[in-house]
Amino acid sequence: MGKVYLIGAGPGDPELLTVKAARLLERATILLHDSLVSREVLQLIPRHAEVIDVGKRCGQKLLTQDEINALLVSYAANHEAVIRLKGGDPVVFGRAGEEIEALRRANVPFEIVPGITAALGAAAAAGISLTDRRVASQIVITTYSRGSDVAATDPFAVTPQLDWAAISSSTTLVLYMPGADYAEVSRRLRKAGQPEDLPCVIVSTATTRNQQIRWTTVAGLANEAKLPAPALLIVGRVATHEIQEIAATNWRSESPEPKAHPMIS
Amino acid sequence: MGKVYLIGAGPGDPELLTVKAARLLERATILLHDSLVSREVLQLIPRHAEVIDVGKRCGQKLLTQDEINALLVSYAANHEAVIRLKGGDPVVFGRAGEEIEALRRANVPFEIVPGITAALGAAAAAGISLTDRRVASQIVITTYSRGSDVAATDPFAVTPQLDWAAISSSTTLVLYMPGADYAEVSRRLRKAGQPEDLPCVIVSTATTRNQQIRWTTVAGLANEAKLPAPALLIVGRVATHEIQEIAATNWRSESPEPKAHPMIS
Repeated sequence: MGKVYLIGAGPGDPELLTVKAARLLERATILLHDSLVSREVLQLIPRHAEVIDVGKRCGQKLLTQDEINALLVSYAANHEAVIRLKGGDPVVFGRAGEEIEALRRANVPFEIVPGITAALGAAAAAGISLTDRRVASQIVITTYSRGSDVAATDPFAVTPQLDWAAISSSTTLVLYMPGADYAEVSRRLRKAGQPEDLPCVIVSTATTRNQQIRWTTVAGLANEAKLPAPALLIVGRVATHEIQEIAATNWRSESPEPKAHPMIS
Repeated sequence: MGKVYLIGAGPGDPELLTVKAARLLERATILLHDSLVSREVLQLIPRHAEVIDVGKRCGQKLLTQDEINALLVSYAANHEAVIRLKGGDPVVFGRAGEEIEALRRANVPFEIVPGITAALGAAAAAGISLTDRRVASQIVITTYSRGSDVAATDPFAVTPQLDWAAISSSTTLVLYMPGADYAEVSRRLRKAGQPEDLPCVIVSTATTRNQQIRWTTVAGLANEAKLPAPALLIVGRVATHEIQEIAATNWRSESPEPKAHPMIS
């Protein structure tokens, strides 16, 4: 029986693969990848390798997660190494959980090879620190999905708890998959008490040739044109291009600090 | 004038450097690193390169952040490429913010080369998904520091807002630098309303030869012996070795959902 490698392909630039991921890709004989892996990374796969795009097949038809799990287990019976390549990092919104479970249940040895998750690629591209200690003490990484989208694509997901009001003024919020409706994201952030002038940056196809970066604010976000996927949104006081102004800025408003949340002493 | 590369050294295993980081390290002529970069990664630096350990000098004396900033700017005047190597990723608790600001102010070109941050190295080592969609919808990355430690080492930091009560049952909490007093961390988590049987995993020196992993719970954490730094703590329903039990488990208690936090609709 072979081994399955769950490998992070990073944000797009092939040079941002890890040395280990690049070494394993070079030797791949069978490889399954999703649709978030960049074209440039896919070009590193040897021509003789069998490549299965599990994100799309026959045009728009998707393989179910159960079908992907079953493929991994069955290929492992006949191959020394099965490569499962995922955009970013496998354990951050990469659905690795169910694949790990299926492999454990079938007693298939596996290894996770981490990748540069989108938040880190985007922050590096934008030249900002996610935890600038003068203004940020934590990072919240989550996704944005409209209720209907969640139900349609992810029936087993837990109820999304976009508890953005709980996000304090020293939090950097990183929103994966912000979708097409930036005005709605802006509305939700404002409704949750986030200041209108709180900086945001949208980073599209970070670290690739087509990378785009838009500096805006919670209010300004509503007027931004949609950028190509994969994109993400960084919201917080660190998300400003004028980083020297971070410490000096007087923020007009603060996010609410509900009394029901005792500060830990 | 040269260029400064702020490079993430990843969690420890040299194979988890990015291809780009490894390439830049190979050619380094001058390099500044902090104390979290693993010995194995430091061994990749060419012998002829000038290496400055800015984490420690003359035994315990630390360079101030201002001194490090000044060194980066002055070296850039005389070197084509200055390498600033940081454990994990530069923009996640790596104090890149102030270095970026100093470089911008001095008009020194710079580039951030992301690295595998500790959370991803630890999750890969433990074989868990941080966002298993059946039980988790977001990740909170923060640090744990006792008040006195913060004041002593980080006078400019924002007030740490360890608002752990705000962490819902579908959050995965990743605590960097959990310190030596696990009993106190356990106490704070329980005080914040986190269930006693909520799984935790402590990962020490992830991805190195000395890696250690301890599976426990919020209550059990109090009785764990301290593991060597760098260590981190993952708290949440994903943090169980018996991952097939994730979906089936009935959790005896839930973290509080304060009414003061409106759920976003």
